[in-house]
Amino acid sequence: MYEALKNSRLADVRTAIRTGTYRSHTAGLGRGHLQANLAIMPEAYALDFMRYCQRNPKPCPLTGVSDTGNPFMFTMGHDIDIRTDVPAYNVYRDGHLTETVDDISDIWRDDFVVFALGCSFTFEHALQEAGISLWHIDNDKTVPMFRSSIETVPAGPFRGKMVVSMRAVPKHRVAEAAEISKCYPLAHGGPVHWGEPKEIGIHDVTRPDWGDAAPVPDDHVPVFWACGVTPQVALEAAQMPICITHKPGHMLITDVAEDAEVPVLSPKTENLTKVP
Amino acid sequence: MYEALKNSRLADVRTAIRTGTYRSHTAGLGRGHLQANLAIMPEAYALDFMRYCQRNPKPCPLTGVSDTGNPFMFTMGHDIDIRTDVPAYNVYRDGHLTETVDDISDIWRDDFVVFALGCSFTFEHALQEAGISLWHIDNDKTVPMFRSSIETVPAGPFRGKMVVSMRAVPKHRVAEAAEISKCYPLAHGGPVHWGEPKEIGIHDVTRPDWGDAAPVPDDHVPVFWACGVTPQVALEAAQMPICITHKPGHMLITDVAEDAEVPVLSPKTENLTKVP
Repeated sequence: MYEALKNSRLADVRTAIRTGTYRSHTAGLGRGHLQANLAIMPEAYALDFMRYCQRNPKPCPLTGVSDTGNPFMFTMGHDIDIRTDVPAYNVYRDGHLTETVDDISDIWRDDFVVFALGCSFTFEHALQEAGISLWHIDNDKTVPMFRSSIETVPAGPFRGKMVVSMRAVPKHRVAEAAEISKCYPLAHGGPVHWGEPKEIGIHDVTRPDWGDAAPVPDDHVPVFWACGVTPQVALEAAQMPICITHKPGHMLITDVAEDAEVPVLSPKTENLTKVP
Repeated sequence: MYEALKNSRLADVRTAIRTGTYRSHTAGLGRGHLQANLAIMPEAYALDFMRYCQRNPKPCPLTGVSDTGNPFMFTMGHDIDIRTDVPAYNVYRDGHLTETVDDISDIWRDDFVVFALGCSFTFEHALQEAGISLWHIDNDKTVPMFRSSIETVPAGPFRGKMVVSMRAVPKHRVAEAAEISKCYPLAHGGPVHWGEPKEIGIHDVTRPDWGDAAPVPDDHVPVFWACGVTPQVALEAAQMPICITHKPGHMLITDVAEDAEVPVLSPKTENLTKVP
């Protein structure tokens, strides 16, 4: 299924996800289109969460916000229904993961607000195109992620340490990797640190808190970028009665071009009105 | 006063503004620091306005959002009190400008949220440094601004046509000017149009809706950028019972470096708590 979808048009990928035919990870699917992390929560928390994203744009680059109660993400796609168009969702209640489901139609609420956040795929593709290879991709692993000692700037109940991902980059290309990724502010932007991991509270770079361990060969430097797991930590800290995210790796594939300067489509009028 | 302040440290400029000694425009003051447009409104409108900014990041590049009721913009400065630290404010009631004042302490409310938006100064400095001269600056005029036919993406009561500013750029440097300004997403980013003004609904490029007329010499192309007057139009459209902006040209000068990748300072704990 995955191999077939890899060469499919975006519309076919979305249909496979929407109908529940495909429920797995989205890396490499809908190539050329922006993929997004997801956070869905009651409107009562939405202003604070949006402030949290504004104050922490590297870990939480906001690419789309729905109207309250409207599951159609009209700024990011012409027909995206957020209740069905993600392969798998994690449902949190009071800060704890309670279910993983492939459709949230039955728990959708009129007061829900959907947030879409940029992910690292965009800048990883740019690094690869520049000839900077990425070990975790070449070896079909998940990037190593660490809870750093960097405090995020809090907003309301949202707070916590920044989670960072690590990619080993040849010493002589670190500056270039930093410059390239800086051009993608909606995909975590430039690195937050490189060199000595201890300086940001990471005591063993071979033992990540999430993802797979990756080597740091001689003549390579560990480079750390802000990571999209950071908002997940902040969401858990907020202990909302209910909150829904994508299942890690199982992202929303949008209609927006991966390299768009602005991740916003012109609105389709029919989607601007709330639906029941 | 202006000439003296031009060479003053930021702290002295802020004191002059805070005490009401200086009440004029801020162009050229606090050089090297990010200046921001301002919109202050009741919390009931804040989520929709933030959505409006997210959906229209070129005209409305959000650089800071206060906590509700907290006049200290701690993410943009170590001691910014938004009630006193702007040289002049416009107060709108029900969508109409009713007063211009130099201090809003007496109309400040516990439900106010402050939004700071990036302005064009940053990318103009970058263009000048690249040797692309700007007629309105060289001639001490205000940049010409036009109501275009480009619809912004609405959010709640916020909507309207995009206002654009025009700068004439030598034909052979247009692509370069676009690339340079693209690097400043918090200062309106890349241009929204260049060439034929009629294509975006501007029928006479010598007659701006705001600002001063500027020539478009032979071998120059009119280049249009999204303009910070756009949110003012959207604020008026929303007809809020009360809303406060800076007086045009009389901006908030922040502690944030003009070329910061992210316009957010680490929080000073004492400012995180609400003040009465």
